[in-house]
Amino acid sequence: MWRHEFKHAYQPTPAQERREAGRLEALSDGVFAIAMTLLVLGIPIHTRDQLTPRTDIVHLVLIDHWAWLSFVTYIVSFLTILVMWLNHHSLCQYIARIDRYFIIANGLLLLMMVFVNYPTALVANFVGTSGGTFAAAVYSGTMVIIALIYRALWWRAKGPLLASDVDPAEVEQITRQYRFGPLLYLAAFGLAFLNPYLSVALNAGLAIYFVFTGNITRRQVRSRPVEAPAQPAEPKP
Amino acid sequence: MWRHEFKHAYQPTPAQERREAGRLEALSDGVFAIAMTLLVLGIPIHTRDQLTPRTDIVHLVLIDHWAWLSFVTYIVSFLTILVMWLNHHSLCQYIARIDRYFIIANGLLLLMMVFVNYPTALVANFVGTSGGTFAAAVYSGTMVIIALIYRALWWRAKGPLLASDVDPAEVEQITRQYRFGPLLYLAAFGLAFLNPYLSVALNAGLAIYFVFTGNITRRQVRSRPVEAPAQPAEPKP
Amino acid sequence: MWRHEFKHAYQPTPAQERREAGRLEALSDGVFAIAMTLLVLGIPIHTRDQLTPRTDIVHLVLIDHWAWLSFVTYIVSFLTILVMWLNHHSLCQYIARIDRYFIIANGLLLLMMVFVNYPTALVANFVGTSGGTFAAAVYSGTMVIIALIYRALWWRAKGPLLASDVDPAEVEQITRQYRFGPLLYLAAFGLAFLNPYLSVALNAGLAIYFVFTGNITRRQVRSRPVEAPAQPAEPKP
Amino acid sequence: MWRHEFKHAYQPTPAQERREAGRLEALSDGVFAIAMTLLVLGIPIHTRDQLTPRTDIVHLVLIDHWAWLSFVTYIVSFLTILVMWLNHHSLCQYIARIDRYFIIANGLLLLMMVFVNYPTALVANFVGTSGGTFAAAVYSGTMVIIALIYRALWWRAKGPLLASDVDPAEVEQITRQYRFGPLLYLAAFGLAFLNPYLSVALNAGLAIYFVFTGNITRRQVRSRPVEAPAQPAEPKP
Repeated sequence: MWRHEFKHAYQPTPAQERREAGRLEALSDGVFAIAMTLLVLGIPIHTRDQLTPRTDIVHLVLIDHWAWLSFVTYIVSFLTILVMWLNHHSLCQYIARIDRYFIIANGLLLLMMVFVNYPTALVANFVGTSGGTFAAAVYSGTMVIIALIYRALWWRAKGPLLASDVDPAEVEQITRQYRFGPLLYLAAFGLAFLNPYLSVALNAGLAIYFVFTGNITRRQVRSRPVEAPAQPAEPKP
Repeated sequence: MWRHEFKHAYQPTPAQERREAGRLEALSDGVFAIAMTLLVLGIPIHTRDQLTPRTDIVHLVLIDHWAWLSFVTYIVSFLTILVMWLNHHSLCQYIARIDRYFIIANGLLLLMMVFVNYPTALVANFVGTSGGTFAAAVYSGTMVIIALIYRALWWRAKGPLLASDVDPAEVEQITRQYRFGPLLYLAAFGLAFLNPYLSVALNAGLAIYFVFTGNITRRQVRSRPVEAPAQPAEPKP
Repeated sequence: MWRHEFKHAYQPTPAQERREAGRLEALSDGVFAIAMTLLVLGIPIHTRDQLTPRTDIVHLVLIDHWAWLSFVTYIVSFLTILVMWLNHHSLCQYIARIDRYFIIANGLLLLMMVFVNYPTALVANFVGTSGGTFAAAVYSGTMVIIALIYRALWWRAKGPLLASDVDPAEVEQITRQYRFGPLLYLAAFGLAFLNPYLSVALNAGLAIYFVFTGNITRRQVRSRPVEAPAQPAEPKP
Repeated sequence: MWRHEFKHAYQPTPAQERREAGRLEALSDGVFAIAMTLLVLGIPIHTRDQLTPRTDIVHLVLIDHWAWLSFVTYIVSFLTILVMWLNHHSLCQYIARIDRYFIIANGLLLLMMVFVNYPTALVANFVGTSGGTFAAAVYSGTMVIIALIYRALWWRAKGPLLASDVDPAEVEQITRQYRFGPLLYLAAFGLAFLNPYLSVALNAGLAIYFVFTGNITRRQVRSRPVEAPAQPAEPKP
């Protein structure tokens, strides 16, 4: 294959690698943004024709179960996708380049992330019915798969794709975090068969926990001593 | 927690901080752009099957109340989201970095901004019916929450996230503006219970007022004297 | 107002102005991209339940008038938005900064551009019926408004927003082009009342004409003599 | 025409050309991202009202043929668009500028790429019925057209748009690849008339093959000897 013929003679520059990684991030950000926004289409819009002497607007919008569950679905899905974006945003800070493996795993991640609306709608529509266990299991199962894909992305990121100025100890810490993630979602999956409500609550709790504790900014190894000013001012004229 | 172990040893560089803030802005811009565009789906598309001897196309598109209200809804929602984008765009110019607080508040802002289509549709569908007061109150209430989130964003922006070259007097002025915003929308909320039409008109008036008076470009403190040329030309060869 | 107090003391840098203009372009590009993509939702998707002994799939997809008109609508709308993007892309190359006037006019342009799907659907659905004249007039009228907004944008762009290295003669040429645009679309508007088919054909012809003749890259005034190499190679090591 | 008057006097700079190509890539990425995300709207969302004593949720979601085919459609379409994005991403690395030809061909590519959802839905809905041959032929025919547009894009890219540091041997190799692509899809088109299932399988196989073998990063000609370190570290302070 021609790819092998050239592999010793040509190497992309770091700037070129950075630009390619940036384009993958931009595509991912676009998918995240659209997935968030499409959620609002799930809220049903009522018309004045639906008003009857017995059904006023408050009844229509707030008491009718399908309507108010759609608000809850909207909020939970929005926050879930926001957490995934945060995690993706954080992970991308550690890599200096991308390869085929990362592109494919990232594509599967986007595929599952866009899909997440479906199990969320299942839970909103079927919790409290005979389908509640199935809905909660599909929801948790989707989360397990997403956690495994994130783990696969990180496994690659901390290998050949890692930026050169990342601290090994920090990598070690994050690796430990990604080891636990899938197990927690697996517990929520098992819980679905005992109590669908608890399973959903555990999933929501994990999302909120990760919003408040997830890694946001990468620390960058610098040669300056610790006591140097954190935010160096531009030289004054 | 591992985050504390490293917090003295590593600091993100200003360029890295700028890049992260840029990625949050890009995500936000994507959500704004999609929210604007999805609005057009609210305009019903008629087909030739709906033409009857008694109903010509003008009747179908312009006289039928649901159709022309959908045009008004489209325009008002589009302008409202444009004003919010303008405000977001302006606010982001003052910050040099983002933190978890700003990311979460920004996420809530996007959540409410995308949601704004729903109360706008409520108002378009129910103004003039028994549900008018409720619709106007939900609309104004959404605007109050958005104004409060903007205020919370600015409170954080003018603190630890502020760029180093911002003039303190300008910050003081903007802080005063954000103090009044929620109060104006709160007045529109109260007005909904007296007269839904006036409440909606006040909301529309505030949107137009902010388009024409809102802050667009940040003034940047520079060391040059005031009489220096505003637009320095590149050096001629 | 506080804006006046500071206007002599602070001036945004060219880089800051460029960055703000870039963010407006990014928002606009997002809206263009989504408006293009949403068009595909207008193509109805048939299901196997619609197959009957008398209606095979070819009949369903190609002969049924509503279906094949939806393909034409899709292609025409896609090309129309592509031409508008091209024009927007070209215009943005001449400006070095944006102001409130440009932001508002650009917002109105996006509002009308997203809206363009609606009159296109009207034409696809009603051409050949009693509503054909009305549909063609709404379509052409929308194009007249868009041409006027582009003209307003250019009027501002060639004034205080113009980049410093633009050739005045080129500006003069483009100004002449923008003077004729609205007149051509106004002719299509008048034609709608004589013959809807001719009006639509003139509009389609103008779109195709502008794809093949519209300005794409701005010529940049450079101090080098004309005979200098057009594409200077990077210095060889 | 005024374009000719100036063509010797002004030349865009490489940076300006790069910026324009970048804006076309950003528009394309936006369209790719939205096309991917819209696919999820094709998965039907069930409600609790559809539960009957004889139809439980598993039956509703997994056994009912329309539902589970929608999952397959979602996954296949998502991967197909991802492969096209990969190919577009790869091709854009070889060009240093864009021209009208490339912009128009790129616009047609986006038009067909967004359209691809339609034949995919046709296949999902009609495979196994009397319409299966037609659906598979439309699907394969769309792929043939897309392969031809990619070939046209590359023909232009390797001519006047080529970056100056591309290796001629690599260009030759890619040209050979693009020569075979349309032929392979043409074979799938012919197969549709013999066996729709095999035609669809060949298309899916080609997509998977291109994910795993397609060109991802361009090799860049560099003056360093082959044994130089692939990833030069930043100079240590």
